[in-house]
Amino acid sequence: MEKIMEFEFSKEFLERFKLALTDRDDVYIQESLGGVRSADICEILTEIGIEEAKYVFDILSSDIAADVLVELEEDFRVEFMEDFAINELSHFIEILDSDDGADLLNELSPRRREEILEEIKNEEKVGHLLDLIRYDEDVAGGLMAKELVKARENWTVKRCIEEIKIQAENVEKIYSVYVVDQQDRLKGRVSLKRILLSNEDKKVAEIFEENIISVGIFLAAQEVANIMQKYDLDAVPVVNVRRKLVGRITIDDVVDVITESAEEERQLMSGVTSDIEEDDGVWVISKARLPWLVIGMTGGLIAAQIADYYSGALNVIARLSLFIPLIMATGGNVGIQSSAIVIQSLAGKNGFNDTLGNRLLKMFYVAMVNGSILSLIVFGAIMLLFKDQLLALTASIALLNVVLLASFMGTITPLLLNRFGINPAIASGPFITTANDLLGLTVYFSIAVFLYNL
Amino acid sequence: MEKIMEFEFSKEFLERFKLALTDRDDVYIQESLGGVRSADICEILTEIGIEEAKYVFDILSSDIAADVLVELEEDFRVEFMEDFAINELSHFIEILDSDDGADLLNELSPRRREEILEEIKNEEKVGHLLDLIRYDEDVAGGLMAKELVKARENWTVKRCIEEIKIQAENVEKIYSVYVVDQQDRLKGRVSLKRILLSNEDKKVAEIFEENIISVGIFLAAQEVANIMQKYDLDAVPVVNVRRKLVGRITIDDVVDVITESAEEERQLMSGVTSDIEEDDGVWVISKARLPWLVIGMTGGLIAAQIADYYSGALNVIARLSLFIPLIMATGGNVGIQSSAIVIQSLAGKNGFNDTLGNRLLKMFYVAMVNGSILSLIVFGAIMLLFKDQLLALTASIALLNVVLLASFMGTITPLLLNRFGINPAIASGPFITTANDLLGLTVYFSIAVFLYNL
Repeated sequence: MEKIMEFEFSKEFLERFKLALTDRDDVYIQESLGGVRSADICEILTEIGIEEAKYVFDILSSDIAADVLVELEEDFRVEFMEDFAINELSHFIEILDSDDGADLLNELSPRRREEILEEIKNEEKVGHLLDLIRYDEDVAGGLMAKELVKARENWTVKRCIEEIKIQAENVEKIYSVYVVDQQDRLKGRVSLKRILLSNEDKKVAEIFEENIISVGIFLAAQEVANIMQKYDLDAVPVVNVRRKLVGRITIDDVVDVITESAEEERQLMSGVTSDIEEDDGVWVISKARLPWLVIGMTGGLIAAQIADYYSGALNVIARLSLFIPLIMATGGNVGIQSSAIVIQSLAGKNGFNDTLGNRLLKMFYVAMVNGSILSLIVFGAIMLLFKDQLLALTASIALLNVVLLASFMGTITPLLLNRFGINPAIASGPFITTANDLLGLTVYFSIAVFLYNL
Repeated sequence: MEKIMEFEFSKEFLERFKLALTDRDDVYIQESLGGVRSADICEILTEIGIEEAKYVFDILSSDIAADVLVELEEDFRVEFMEDFAINELSHFIEILDSDDGADLLNELSPRRREEILEEIKNEEKVGHLLDLIRYDEDVAGGLMAKELVKARENWTVKRCIEEIKIQAENVEKIYSVYVVDQQDRLKGRVSLKRILLSNEDKKVAEIFEENIISVGIFLAAQEVANIMQKYDLDAVPVVNVRRKLVGRITIDDVVDVITESAEEERQLMSGVTSDIEEDDGVWVISKARLPWLVIGMTGGLIAAQIADYYSGALNVIARLSLFIPLIMATGGNVGIQSSAIVIQSLAGKNGFNDTLGNRLLKMFYVAMVNGSILSLIVFGAIMLLFKDQLLALTASIALLNVVLLASFMGTITPLLLNRFGINPAIASGPFITTANDLLGLTVYFSIAVFLYNL
């Protein structure tokens, strides 16, 4: 029976593989990796460590090795490539698609980059690479590949097919042929399906689609992802300001953008800096987490100072302070919820956005509804548990105010961050949350001072 | 110049459009929507409200209308479809791909579903739909479409192209032709590019790829997404237990799965139930947020009880309670960080997972590193600010213990939830966070009781 399954590693496989590696049993290694997909080989390489990985890598066929190199995790790859000779790297970069090649180049030192570009024989490829390494990876230009199939309106379908044959080796996945004018300006596209179904003598002019979506070269990667997702596109052409066709972005690159941005948001929300994973070392993980913890803790210390300041005037501080956690936790939760909703609507923004005024008004209504209900519960609970009317009144009035304030902060902060081009997901992170906690505490004690007539 | 741009709404366009709608100016409506993509028409319909939306919808051409129906947001669509006659719905479901048609059917009442299926003339389509509505939307069967192009090994390329021509109307996007045997069991695939580049007389047997990836019909949607992303697939064939080819899943459906699961996680982490958006009504938003706030607040009330319980034994409660926020906030942050890292590694799981023991050991080391540093800072800060050695000792020892405890809970909770098939992202939500807060508080006061010798 054929193997039409995802490759799954067993502990046994890996142990046997490591054994073969110790014995330098090239035949076994080669055989056991036959038919294994590059993405799976990456996992094996990551598992066996950089030095052994290089040994296995050198046994792989050139094509597979190039794919493996592209699919390795960036951290691992950067370290991995350090041991490569210039001519090895230039060989792989030459056979890769220009977008992948440019990504590799950008991970190398400027000097090695120069040396590699000098080594590459194919002039066109060098031109493509030089063009691509200029763009930041978070704009369309940084995602696109230069390899694509172009056609003119007056070509026949037959000529298109010939052109595809010539380009087929360079272009891994062909979804469409792009139609350009004499100045290389994008006019439209013909899908591969359409070409296959059309008579060979038909002119491109008769069958091409005119009204197609393209993206500018400096459009943000996240925007490109939104557009491709919204309109269900497999590939999108990239044009410069003169509408000249300069490249194309395929859906697989965009899927990575979507996943990465979701991950980044989750990290910002959880208070973990930089791109760490569970299998990173203890020190790496500790270092990434510490700054956020220090921020949160500094907030706690300042909170103690605030409470201490008021305690001079308040003998009742002991009882009041029992409710500090309640006030702070609720304020914190409200703030995170508010910002999460705003962040979500900023991420999936549609044509019609509410004005700031409408947003704030609505936020106010929601806060009034939730704040009132929560305040009533708290009032009832304190009367029941502590039988202290003044305390119940202080806590519930403070709570309503804290909910209103936290909603306001939670709504306005991501909007402001977004305005200044900062990822608004940070508004759910420890820094802003801590700031909101402190504001809430101040409100609580101010109301206490007022109500206790001190 | 051609329009090769994304359609953007202006306020002016919308106002003019609404005016035309009031005047029932069908000519204007039709003209202004000419060439506008279905995803954009959806936004306009959502904006003008259900009743007016139906009026505009009826003016659209059948093909565009069907696409619009599929791309509307689910909540809106369910309400929108209530006004449709049975024959209208059956018409649209008949012209749609079977996966989209099945999605619509699943949103209708069982009775309307029956009526619609009776109305559809195309027997094959009815068979497809009956087959698909059985599957839950979070498994491969619920994502797949039945429409695909099949070929036999002994066919020529020419015959493949003929078959594609016959199927072209039914299958919107063709990436590959799937090769099956006489029992319809999947043997491999030929890419469209390969067909285009091969000689017409070549046999499929000579050019098809054998070792391809397929997914089982009950594989979780999230797993399908992971596989397609990992191996950069545009489409993946779906097989049943007998390896019979039953459908195929395309990348656009999977992109939606990825985005939705990221959104769901964000909501769980922010404490917002159900799928709410910023443009939902005040009451809907309030209702979705309230339960989580009540959970957080109940935690605060219990915290007050805990503190109050100890205050009988402790005269020093006032000073100690100053540091309640610090202990709770740090514990909460540590817990969220720990679970975020575990959740992330569960989501992108690779072939080699650490054992539980290794995970916990590593968690312990990280907690020791961070906890020790934080404790030292706190000790120093309290000595500096309050000049109270016993207080500084209590707070810093408690902090170390809380960090260890929160790390443990943050690591073990998502793993347990995952074991029981619950989305582990909930471990970052308010419920678990509140539970951790209370544990932390208990630890704090226990240590205080011990150190103050009470």
